[in-house]
Amino acid sequence: MNKWPKQVTIKEVGPRDGLQNEKTQIATEDKIAWINQLSKTGLTYIEITSFVHPKWIPQLADALEVAMRIERAPGVTYAALVPNQKGLEKALAAEVDEVAVFMSASETHNRKNINKSIEETFPVLEEVVKTAKRAGKTVRGYVSTAFGCPYEGNVSIEQVIRVSERLFAMGIDELSLGDTIGVATPKQVLELLEAVLQRFPKEKLAMHFHDTRGTALANILVSLEMGITTFDSSLGGLGGCPYAPGASGNVATDDLVYMLHGMGIATGIDVERLTATALFIQDKIGRPLSSRYLQTIAR
Amino acid sequence: MNKWPKQVTIKEVGPRDGLQNEKTQIATEDKIAWINQLSKTGLTYIEITSFVHPKWIPQLADALEVAMRIERAPGVTYAALVPNQKGLEKALAAEVDEVAVFMSASETHNRKNINKSIEETFPVLEEVVKTAKRAGKTVRGYVSTAFGCPYEGNVSIEQVIRVSERLFAMGIDELSLGDTIGVATPKQVLELLEAVLQRFPKEKLAMHFHDTRGTALANILVSLEMGITTFDSSLGGLGGCPYAPGASGNVATDDLVYMLHGMGIATGIDVERLTATALFIQDKIGRPLSSRYLQTIAR
Repeated sequence: MNKWPKQVTIKEVGPRDGLQNEKTQIATEDKIAWINQLSKTGLTYIEITSFVHPKWIPQLADALEVAMRIERAPGVTYAALVPNQKGLEKALAAEVDEVAVFMSASETHNRKNINKSIEETFPVLEEVVKTAKRAGKTVRGYVSTAFGCPYEGNVSIEQVIRVSERLFAMGIDELSLGDTIGVATPKQVLELLEAVLQRFPKEKLAMHFHDTRGTALANILVSLEMGITTFDSSLGGLGGCPYAPGASGNVATDDLVYMLHGMGIATGIDVERLTATALFIQDKIGRPLSSRYLQTIAR
Repeated sequence: MNKWPKQVTIKEVGPRDGLQNEKTQIATEDKIAWINQLSKTGLTYIEITSFVHPKWIPQLADALEVAMRIERAPGVTYAALVPNQKGLEKALAAEVDEVAVFMSASETHNRKNINKSIEETFPVLEEVVKTAKRAGKTVRGYVSTAFGCPYEGNVSIEQVIRVSERLFAMGIDELSLGDTIGVATPKQVLELLEAVLQRFPKEKLAMHFHDTRGTALANILVSLEMGITTFDSSLGGLGGCPYAPGASGNVATDDLVYMLHGMGIATGIDVERLTATALFIQDKIGRPLSSRYLQTIAR
């Protein structure tokens, strides 16, 4: 039975994508303690923070301190999001292992998010990638709104390909295609991946789903069937409170691990430690997180 | 692209499986109003109640009144769950279109749920099916705990087949395989369906998933790929409060419809009416329901 791969890499983005969407301000000490716990779950990749200006994301204003003070576990890649050269300098000062650049596939979302057109964004990221590479770092490229834009609605496959090609041409090592607003369904995932996999090797692709409309695990299932083996997720579904307006969380790491392990797909993750780590951050957030698995086992 | 079917039948079980797992007692008038609204959404099948003794399920103590007083829309099949001959008599008095019998694939769950062994259950259901058929009714058979038992853990495929064969031999028109405790993952669904489809035609099969661990839509996706076109669901994910101990809801009709329509799979359901109907019952339940879709569009 070769329908699904035997092994999958999960990239934990909770400390960045999760926390940046939470209203609760988590203390720096708690972030550090949480990331240190995450490092002991078997996860091999943690996106620990974002070096975006604190004016935009006050929740991550302590990025440098977090990045400097966490304990680095061997075998774990610690990554940080950087919007530009200034952010990159901080990330390099903190000696993260990998930096992640980002832009949107849709013009309006890119403008609202980065305050630049897509064309204006390319040279900025090009310089970041070049500098990061020169510093010996690997670089991940995020394409946001790859499955739909909150302002424009549909986003064409051609547009996703166009942006992705430019990012690969800059030298990124991995591309993460993001369903930022959680609208994708499996058919759309299949169609986008059919086009994308004609151009880029599946080893360089990751999928980044939000579970806003409940379809994330189904979207991951069809991605697995297309040969994708890297997925982004947030522990507990952090950032996605079903009761908080506007929040739309990443697929929950614990829901994803439950499904994968149940399918005999290895992740290297220790479920008990993962759960304890989810309960730790849930306690700091101060409300039940949105993960189905966590709420079920927490009973 | 023939990976998925073009059309799917959704069987709404919220008024029965949903409400029987809610702590809030819904007024009879509200149940009737809700079912009447459901009848106008494009749904073609509604399981309206259960004629189980009120001692076991007080939430549905008004089964007869609900069944007698709802308005019957043309083109909609109104079904009710019956545990035995006594329940069937009430269902026939209420002139439901279809009756559903049920038993478990696992011995312990069957004993705890029905107070009989599996072997002792067969003759009871046999008589119910025979009487219902003689009265001109179609009969649906539920097999609970087909993917796992809360007491025994694993349930073997052989055991599911054995119980299913006996139910078909009694003359049931459709078999619904239930993941009662929401533990299934897509691999298990694939393996069970591979075995089941060797014995029974896919047109006579329905899948009944609970979303307890977030895997329901992924399980439905793999079922679609195996050719299954009938799925049970509860509007809003009724019966599954992430904050209420012990509850584990059916997959949400609205999450399912969102995914299917997004995949170009027809259901005949009007999403706007469905959403209004979900908001109606959410208001009566008095807390946010667990459906991701509903919480997202309700913002």
